[in-house]
Amino acid sequence: MRDLLGGKGAGVAEMTKAGLPVPPGFTITTEACNAYYEAGKQFPPGMWEQALAALRIVEQQTGKTFGDRHNPLLVSVRSGAKFSMPGMMDTVLNLGLNDETVQGLVEQTGDERFAYDAYRRFIQMFSKIVLDADPREFEQKLDEYKERTGASSDAELPASALKELVAEFKQIAERQSGQPFPTDVYEQLKRAIEAVFASWNNKRAIDYRNFNKIPHNLGTAVNVQSMVFGNMGNDSGTGVAFTRNPSTGEKELYGEYLLNAQGEDVVAGIRTPSKISRLKEELPQVYEQLQEIARRLERHYRDMQDMEFTVERGRLYMLQTRSGKRSARAAVKVAVDMVEEGLISEEEAIRRSDPTQIYQLLLPRFDEEAKARAHKEGRFLARGLNASPGAAAGKAVFDADRAEELGKAGVPVVLVRPETSPDDVHGMLVSKGILTARGGATSHAAVVARGLGLPCVAGCEGIRVYEEEKLFRVVGSDVVIREGDEISIDGDTGEVFAGVIPTVEPNFEKETELQKLLSWADRIRKLGVWANADYPRDAQRAVTFGAEGIGLCRTEHMFMEQERLPIVQKMILAKTPEERQAALDQLLPFQRSDFIGIFETMVNPRTGECYPVVIRLIDPPLHEFLPNYEELLVEVTRLEATGADPEALKEKKALLDAVAAMREMNPMLGLRGCRLGLLFPEITIMQTRAILEAALEVAQKTGKKPQVKIMIPLVGHVNELREVRRQLEAVAKEVTAEAGSAVEYKFGTMIELPRAALTADQIATVADFFSFGTNDLTQTTFGFSRDDAEGKFLMKYVDGLDAPGLPEKVKILPVNPFQTIDRDGVGQLVRMAAEKGRAANPQIELGICGEHGGDPSSIEFFHEVGLDYVSCSPFRVPVARLAAAQAALSKSEKDK
Amino acid sequence: MRDLLGGKGAGVAEMTKAGLPVPPGFTITTEACNAYYEAGKQFPPGMWEQALAALRIVEQQTGKTFGDRHNPLLVSVRSGAKFSMPGMMDTVLNLGLNDETVQGLVEQTGDERFAYDAYRRFIQMFSKIVLDADPREFEQKLDEYKERTGASSDAELPASALKELVAEFKQIAERQSGQPFPTDVYEQLKRAIEAVFASWNNKRAIDYRNFNKIPHNLGTAVNVQSMVFGNMGNDSGTGVAFTRNPSTGEKELYGEYLLNAQGEDVVAGIRTPSKISRLKEELPQVYEQLQEIARRLERHYRDMQDMEFTVERGRLYMLQTRSGKRSARAAVKVAVDMVEEGLISEEEAIRRSDPTQIYQLLLPRFDEEAKARAHKEGRFLARGLNASPGAAAGKAVFDADRAEELGKAGVPVVLVRPETSPDDVHGMLVSKGILTARGGATSHAAVVARGLGLPCVAGCEGIRVYEEEKLFRVVGSDVVIREGDEISIDGDTGEVFAGVIPTVEPNFEKETELQKLLSWADRIRKLGVWANADYPRDAQRAVTFGAEGIGLCRTEHMFMEQERLPIVQKMILAKTPEERQAALDQLLPFQRSDFIGIFETMVNPRTGECYPVVIRLIDPPLHEFLPNYEELLVEVTRLEATGADPEALKEKKALLDAVAAMREMNPMLGLRGCRLGLLFPEITIMQTRAILEAALEVAQKTGKKPQVKIMIPLVGHVNELREVRRQLEAVAKEVTAEAGSAVEYKFGTMIELPRAALTADQIATVADFFSFGTNDLTQTTFGFSRDDAEGKFLMKYVDGLDAPGLPEKVKILPVNPFQTIDRDGVGQLVRMAAEKGRAANPQIELGICGEHGGDPSSIEFFHEVGLDYVSCSPFRVPVARLAAAQAALSKSEKDK
Repeated sequence: MRDLLGGKGAGVAEMTKAGLPVPPGFTITTEACNAYYEAGKQFPPGMWEQALAALRIVEQQTGKTFGDRHNPLLVSVRSGAKFSMPGMMDTVLNLGLNDETVQGLVEQTGDERFAYDAYRRFIQMFSKIVLDADPREFEQKLDEYKERTGASSDAELPASALKELVAEFKQIAERQSGQPFPTDVYEQLKRAIEAVFASWNNKRAIDYRNFNKIPHNLGTAVNVQSMVFGNMGNDSGTGVAFTRNPSTGEKELYGEYLLNAQGEDVVAGIRTPSKISRLKEELPQVYEQLQEIARRLERHYRDMQDMEFTVERGRLYMLQTRSGKRSARAAVKVAVDMVEEGLISEEEAIRRSDPTQIYQLLLPRFDEEAKARAHKEGRFLARGLNASPGAAAGKAVFDADRAEELGKAGVPVVLVRPETSPDDVHGMLVSKGILTARGGATSHAAVVARGLGLPCVAGCEGIRVYEEEKLFRVVGSDVVIREGDEISIDGDTGEVFAGVIPTVEPNFEKETELQKLLSWADRIRKLGVWANADYPRDAQRAVTFGAEGIGLCRTEHMFMEQERLPIVQKMILAKTPEERQAALDQLLPFQRSDFIGIFETMVNPRTGECYPVVIRLIDPPLHEFLPNYEELLVEVTRLEATGADPEALKEKKALLDAVAAMREMNPMLGLRGCRLGLLFPEITIMQTRAILEAALEVAQKTGKKPQVKIMIPLVGHVNELREVRRQLEAVAKEVTAEAGSAVEYKFGTMIELPRAALTADQIATVADFFSFGTNDLTQTTFGFSRDDAEGKFLMKYVDGLDAPGLPEKVKILPVNPFQTIDRDGVGQLVRMAAEKGRAANPQIELGICGEHGGDPSSIEFFHEVGLDYVSCSPFRVPVARLAAAQAALSKSEKDK
Repeated sequence: MRDLLGGKGAGVAEMTKAGLPVPPGFTITTEACNAYYEAGKQFPPGMWEQALAALRIVEQQTGKTFGDRHNPLLVSVRSGAKFSMPGMMDTVLNLGLNDETVQGLVEQTGDERFAYDAYRRFIQMFSKIVLDADPREFEQKLDEYKERTGASSDAELPASALKELVAEFKQIAERQSGQPFPTDVYEQLKRAIEAVFASWNNKRAIDYRNFNKIPHNLGTAVNVQSMVFGNMGNDSGTGVAFTRNPSTGEKELYGEYLLNAQGEDVVAGIRTPSKISRLKEELPQVYEQLQEIARRLERHYRDMQDMEFTVERGRLYMLQTRSGKRSARAAVKVAVDMVEEGLISEEEAIRRSDPTQIYQLLLPRFDEEAKARAHKEGRFLARGLNASPGAAAGKAVFDADRAEELGKAGVPVVLVRPETSPDDVHGMLVSKGILTARGGATSHAAVVARGLGLPCVAGCEGIRVYEEEKLFRVVGSDVVIREGDEISIDGDTGEVFAGVIPTVEPNFEKETELQKLLSWADRIRKLGVWANADYPRDAQRAVTFGAEGIGLCRTEHMFMEQERLPIVQKMILAKTPEERQAALDQLLPFQRSDFIGIFETMVNPRTGECYPVVIRLIDPPLHEFLPNYEELLVEVTRLEATGADPEALKEKKALLDAVAAMREMNPMLGLRGCRLGLLFPEITIMQTRAILEAALEVAQKTGKKPQVKIMIPLVGHVNELREVRRQLEAVAKEVTAEAGSAVEYKFGTMIELPRAALTADQIATVADFFSFGTNDLTQTTFGFSRDDAEGKFLMKYVDGLDAPGLPEKVKILPVNPFQTIDRDGVGQLVRMAAEKGRAANPQIELGICGEHGGDPSSIEFFHEVGLDYVSCSPFRVPVARLAAAQAALSKSEKDK
């Protein structure tokens, strides 16, 4: 139904069927829209005739006649795609008015002012949407009339003025479009339908679909519905309401309404509306009816609904219902609550949760002390609505284009607008947060920000935004924030501050609903979820987030610590094997204590048993530990040029030569990974000894046996691994002999070079486990150096390149392959290696420790390929737990 | 037979069967050798008994008895592996002598001096080979006796002195070995056999096998043969002879002999022997018999033979025959002559030719004028034997270890030795040429150098080499050449010069035998052979060498030329599209004229039709065309430090910033290849226009239609190729419209990234051809940056790494994968891409343009995979033609 009728059309149809009060209407299908485009923007044969037939039925249902000068039927014409695209497409209200039918409206309502107000609104809207006229001229003329008549709002304009305005508006429309304003109501309808079809392919809509990965070939439906009026006095009104709080997930009606107003007044945020709870006092029967409808809709759709309604002279009409957008926190709470209310199953709760939203829940928030300090220092500026949760800090920017420019350059920006409109979306996409001076919790800014997972403070009336001057002033003070000044906004509280406030991590342990959801995910998923962690504190966080092991512990970070680096440099620059060994002997106790810390941390909190820990031996080229070559070069050149300090020069020069000898053209493909260990076995031997001694010590101290897995990086040929394994086994034998008790460990390798994947059958014969290093594998498979590619061309590949002779940019890659695994290429190697590895060694354990381990789409792929676990950064562990469960559900559905 | 008996044993057995005069003997098989090693260095059961039984038969045949004090049988014990390893393994002569049997020898020969000389030689040799004694002490003692008796050569030592020497030698042997010298002749035999077995695994033998890629598990046979003596007077002698001249291939007996000498005197080069043609005068009957035997052996073996013979009192004995090592030139001439003599088929001539030798034939030689100038300048030093053809220049080095050290560091060295021995081979392997003061054309130095394809001047008696002082003096002058001084040697003429003489290319057109051989190869081979050439002069050479197309014309070399580089830099640093276009407009005519030159050159000399030319659009990162960053950094730092010339500083700083902005961490994987064209389409468009306009111009001028193939580098995703193709087609349309006549071209891509190979089915849908760029494909598949890897670890991977706890080095890779394609990994991708490409686009043309295109083993693989052509450097085209024919022959044999 949604495919054909769009979300809105399907909602209206279902509500009608369920006997809810819905203004009569009909829907032109998405199929018709697509046929319209295929026919070169012509209505497909028969479509118009069917529409007219449907219109006749609406006439019968309402007892009104379209174009009738006594009892005219007025309609709204709205778009409605399969997936909600709030504010992205166009709507025309009050269609069916002309100089004759407006008289009929006067007769029907007995309200001349209302009728001419409706008429002028129609002309204004139709001109903008259908005739593509510049709306500003209409606004100016309206302001002119308000001034002239001394009216402080639209509602105060007398009927006489409105009559004149209608005439003026028609003239403006005629001048701008070069043709008389259409008086034939059927022509009005036809052209409005065409305009809705056309709105499917306007820039805003395309941008939105690109960002939200909605296909471009779905088309939009057109909903034609008889008008009801919320602006017929104070027993009329219009509003939007969620069946639950879209920010917190609480089970309560949540929304806003305006009495004596039409729908667009609420959405546009021009008048600040009342909270829905006030309706209980203002129109108690309507409120009660709305609550009952909310219950029925939730039972029907088994999801939280976002409803639009209008009250016409005390009578409630439902205009639309759809699944409500919600914050990450609300999404989790609603899903978990609905399971407990018996509305949906646990699987359904998993299926409809969005793993990337989960990630947002775990994002840092403002440090409370720092925030208190900001208050004390007088940096608090104002408070608005907490429209979308999360904290953001960045440079204030006052237009979307500038936000896009800076944001794409990596500058954190907060977009500040009087209010936002669909024209601002491209800037919102790259901002860290949104601040608006006007509009409520369901305003454009708030809805879009929640959808994007961006912090948003809306309707912040304590600031006044001057777009042209690119600044905002704080009301009642002389504080001015200009473009480029730092500000911080708290989407959880609505507070706005000057300057940057540092952030802290949220408390995962207190997220009880999330914990519940993830515990269901754990029951469903087949993939293990491990974490990448180099330090005990990371490991601790990983366990808290539910990781069942360390999939990647990088030992080189340990080398970088301040007190160790000089020893590491001594080791690298050693002139004799003895010097090198002496440095390594100094490093051994450091490494051992690092590993002790990690082994002690990685304990299953339920069973008390040790989790597996995969420790990767040293990987980066040794020159990464040495001083920077170019800095040395500059120093030496300077010392030479000035002639000062010949002793220092000599020393620096010697160091420069040593560093120069180790430099590489392409260090990514140079002397690193297992190649280091093969050339300098004493490093590998030291690391292995540190690992095994640490495991023995922990076992002795705690009585628990660490699950040690030693991993060799950058293997390309089985002989490399074979030789390293031989060396390691010798060390293990030594350590065992010294300790008098055997140390157990598994031995494995990264699969991060194409050749390793291609010859995985050979490599599997000497490995107990494989861990796919999909970062490096992506680099070598594509021939992309990530350091160079992302800045220089990769983002253009994803966003689209200027293509000479073509109107549109050409996209080379659908997604950034470093974020989501490239299934055709890199994925093919992963699948091949998994199959070959298992065939040669059925006991082999397969995991992945690249960044893709925390990406839901990639996790789905790894599940399909049949890996044993994914390993990702600790923060992404909850994401991975959920995504892994979703992958299992989707696979088992596919297999059905 | 050769497998079991080794080359020598099989030769002797065959000669015996053919009724040739061979001293009776028997052979212990390679199987026995392997069984000996398997049993932990124990004779396998029954072996010794069989040897004794065979010895009994030899006793019957010779009428002598082993160990008999009156009529003793003496034997030689020699190694003999399947593949000839000259001088690599050990031999014991005169075995069976002790204080008693020596009396029998006196009785037999009536020559006491001879008998005791044989005895002392036996003790000396047995001590060195079997008892592992230091040979120098024996030599010193011998010299002492010569001095004491006033003998100027061994032959002048009187019997009495020799008797004493025998006693002294036995004492030396006992002292060094810690046990009495064995007097039991059976013990002598047993231990000699063991020593030969052991010699299979000595360092020299292992090194030789590694270098020549001979498997280590073949084992050696042991040949036990009754002794004949060439040192029984002037009607006796010993020599070696080739059935044809191993240097030129001329059909004539070629070799040397010494009268009154034993075999090792010739091989060791201690006395300078006579040319074989002198034998016609000294022993005419023997000479005639030898000629007849040579004819019979060639008919039997259908190959040139290398024979060892001894004349004992006028009677000729054949000791050994084997296929003779020969120079590249000789190899070709012998093969072609033998086809014309009806001895072998064309296929056989192809099969037994060595493609890498062909390459040597085409190596540069000394420039004649430069050589004449060297003569005029008095730089000529001396003339020796032209022992192995070719020219070499480099630093003189006087010991093999130093040669190895410098040679591996890339320094060209010429190894200068009094004479060489197997202990020098490791140094010879890395030298550019060999110069010895002593020894003939069949001396160790000469034989090994010819085998290695190294120029060698041997027996250069005009110089005197002082090993210890690391210098040589030119006899009759005061010229001294010390270690590190440059010298040049001409292996074709035997000349030696001081200083470096520049080289020129050989004249391929005059190599008529080679031309004939290659024309047969052309008939047999299935693979096309194309060449990589960037300039018309390279293209011309390629056609001369028989290339049938250009498989890779790199356009960026054209950018590097002096007058163009400033324009290229202007193009790269352009601040506006207009500036960039202006620079490109200037480059266009240059590129067009480049392509015109190449199209005009690439014409089939037989048919007059154009050969295909694959032109690759710009590939390297643009910063390669800019000034070096570090040099700029030093300049700027210097200008800053000295405070001089603020204008220059400002300018340099701006340039530094521009260059800095373009630098990359890993340029190999950065903004290069098709990525450049996608980001800067105007470059691709200019290049395409230049190519197509050039083709049109050539067609108009010559009436011949160039076969244009435009190739896109570094494609990883089909969308990249699709977009470039779209842009190119637009240019082609424009050029066609402007010219009024259509221009034809094919469009294809390099397959040089793993992802391209993995998704070749997708890519093939938009490509007319693939060309495998196996250099880059090897880099990305292995994760090896060639610039870094070869110097830093790859050669160690191939040569072997020190392995802690192991006595031997551990080899990681069997060969350098940049020289010979890695079939398991990179080859797997090539095969996959060929199959997927053909399946998706059956018309697709498949070639390879990496360096592997000129490597015989890789060519065999490309033939098996079914590529259409290989493309290599022009010099390697003849190699590839031959190797491709061999691949076809070997495949059709396998398929049988």
